[in-house]
Amino acid sequence: MYKIIKRDGNAKRAEFQTVHGTIQTPVFMNVATVAAIKGGVSTEDLEGIGTQVVLSNTYHLHLRPGDDLIYRMGGLHRFMSCNRPILTDSGGFQVFSLAKTRKIREEGVYFHSHIDGHKLFMGPEESMRIQSHLGSTIAMAFDECPSANAEHDYVKMSVDRTTRWLKRCQDEMKRLNSIEYTVNRSQLLFGINQGAIFDDIRIEHAKRISDMDLDGYAVGGLAVGESHEEMYHVLEEVVPYLPLEKPTYLMGVGTPANILEAVERGVDFFDCVYPSRNGRHGHLYTNRGHINIMNARYEMDDVPIEEGCQCPACRRYSKAYIRHLLKAGEMLGMRLCVLHNLYFYNHMMEEIRRAIEDGKFASYKRSKLDSMQEFDNNTSAEYRAIDKNWRKG
Amino acid sequence: MYKIIKRDGNAKRAEFQTVHGTIQTPVFMNVATVAAIKGGVSTEDLEGIGTQVVLSNTYHLHLRPGDDLIYRMGGLHRFMSCNRPILTDSGGFQVFSLAKTRKIREEGVYFHSHIDGHKLFMGPEESMRIQSHLGSTIAMAFDECPSANAEHDYVKMSVDRTTRWLKRCQDEMKRLNSIEYTVNRSQLLFGINQGAIFDDIRIEHAKRISDMDLDGYAVGGLAVGESHEEMYHVLEEVVPYLPLEKPTYLMGVGTPANILEAVERGVDFFDCVYPSRNGRHGHLYTNRGHINIMNARYEMDDVPIEEGCQCPACRRYSKAYIRHLLKAGEMLGMRLCVLHNLYFYNHMMEEIRRAIEDGKFASYKRSKLDSMQEFDNNTSAEYRAIDKNWRKG
Repeated sequence: MYKIIKRDGNAKRAEFQTVHGTIQTPVFMNVATVAAIKGGVSTEDLEGIGTQVVLSNTYHLHLRPGDDLIYRMGGLHRFMSCNRPILTDSGGFQVFSLAKTRKIREEGVYFHSHIDGHKLFMGPEESMRIQSHLGSTIAMAFDECPSANAEHDYVKMSVDRTTRWLKRCQDEMKRLNSIEYTVNRSQLLFGINQGAIFDDIRIEHAKRISDMDLDGYAVGGLAVGESHEEMYHVLEEVVPYLPLEKPTYLMGVGTPANILEAVERGVDFFDCVYPSRNGRHGHLYTNRGHINIMNARYEMDDVPIEEGCQCPACRRYSKAYIRHLLKAGEMLGMRLCVLHNLYFYNHMMEEIRRAIEDGKFASYKRSKLDSMQEFDNNTSAEYRAIDKNWRKG
Repeated sequence: MYKIIKRDGNAKRAEFQTVHGTIQTPVFMNVATVAAIKGGVSTEDLEGIGTQVVLSNTYHLHLRPGDDLIYRMGGLHRFMSCNRPILTDSGGFQVFSLAKTRKIREEGVYFHSHIDGHKLFMGPEESMRIQSHLGSTIAMAFDECPSANAEHDYVKMSVDRTTRWLKRCQDEMKRLNSIEYTVNRSQLLFGINQGAIFDDIRIEHAKRISDMDLDGYAVGGLAVGESHEEMYHVLEEVVPYLPLEKPTYLMGVGTPANILEAVERGVDFFDCVYPSRNGRHGHLYTNRGHINIMNARYEMDDVPIEEGCQCPACRRYSKAYIRHLLKAGEMLGMRLCVLHNLYFYNHMMEEIRRAIEDGKFASYKRSKLDSMQEFDNNTSAEYRAIDKNWRKG
């Protein structure tokens, strides 16, 4: 079901067949946390900006509206009227980052809802059941994501437990997929490599999970506080130990530069809230770098965010209009900015796929990075603001 | 340029040709206060919900982003990428209702901006110049809108001044349309009948302005606190004195029932913030009455807001999904509700036009009103909430 079409160095150009359609990789998944992309973006909109895969958050949907409700409505695809592949995360990352007063035990995690504080428990089986209720195309294994500053001993202990949890996820997913009333009985399961920035733990873990014949493999626990260089180093160490014949997913990453570097190191799935979150603040991506559309210099700017761009914002509206909408607090302004940024990411992935097919990824990457640095309107303050947003998740 | 196709009782089915396209009347104009419909609705969206005419607010655009900026961007049509007729109000109503510490003089109105408090002046010539900058299809005359409780003497004095202002508007519009650099040199001007609820003042004013050969005539100063019955009475008294061969516009009105009653009395243009504002709060129109989608009974409701409705919300999404989006604070929820409500209004106008063409308006009106009263989910509290919103403007 995963077929490499072309390799260019370590970069992979592949096709991944799922019950909801074939995914062309490398791919950027567009984040729809609570079954909708923030910023008023509809399912029709997604179809107009080249979205291949939607990512939704298990923890959020479990709390509101409840996975049980979505199950009764026929699953997430039917609920949000989406006929493309959907990946759901495990809920683990949010349990560890959003929920209050959590206690980690062998069976799973005890915590309090960040919405109303009520007591909850989530372990591998619960995560699989929730994701099975949602009926996503790809479910993610329930794992612990240790912080970038965690000690070697703690990380070792945590990763061992994550491996035991992975086996339980796999068993539970098999059981759920065998039940007649399951929404999507072909639900796939990806395992997640952890180990913070410790090469030895990461590599040993990668070897162990590679033996488990999962449908894909993610590298998790990155973009949580380590430097970009540390992230790239981990990828160089770990990706060679993950199965080449399975998709590789770098979770929660990242900037266009991060994606280019990771593709070069063999990654083919990405997701990040960066384009939609920055879009809502008027921070926009162009092929010449970031712009902040609130800047006074765009007040009378009668041209689109990026000339020649085929996104719904650039095909029709000027920077002056979009800036006016944001200043007046009109939602349409946010929506147009989010559409532009997601289109930018999705379109960049298309360029990446073509560059790999043509055996020209290295030169494509170099020219893309160069052009994005050229932009003379970038101030380092704007860059920092964007990077800070990105760090938050 | 205004041609009656069919009359059915006093109801008129007409075509109004403008430089931006032909308007089929009776028509409901969709309100885009600051050059965008609130709720993340784009120009493309408007095209998908049967919008014929957009209404934008002169006062708001004058303050932000400034009519000067919009003029430099090529006018409102180009600025908001809209190729349909746009009507702009005069700014008068907002000067009287929103602005602080206003002083009315023969020359115009002195007031303070409701945004930053700075001193401003607007008179007939200023209003025409701003609307000429915007380049709307139809400009409205600058008038005073006396409150429903104003005394006879005050209203008489005010309406006399409004008539003098109308002459100044007409002269200034003629001058502006003769200038080579004017955005839309075919800009039309509608006069506005005032007189609160005093028949004698209303009728005398209607006669006087009818002699002035304007492009259309509005009835203003209604839906500002008087009862529905008083409103209908004013229409019955006044409309017969307005030229039959010109369009008649009832400003700021109203509920579906108001519109049906007014069409029966010869009105063919309408506008109201009611559908978009109620939509943003999850109050939705259906052919069986209002529903409040936040109501718990819709939590697991797997069918659209209205079955068979061809709006972008009903074609694709269930009540359960839209309710979830609103509860989660997702903008998409608001956007879908606004699209549904505007479609409902635009579609009702289409039904009205067909009914008049078929000579069946009276029976159409009766069955429409009956069906909307049938709806068993309406609570009078919901009705009151909606009506209160409507009163606010």
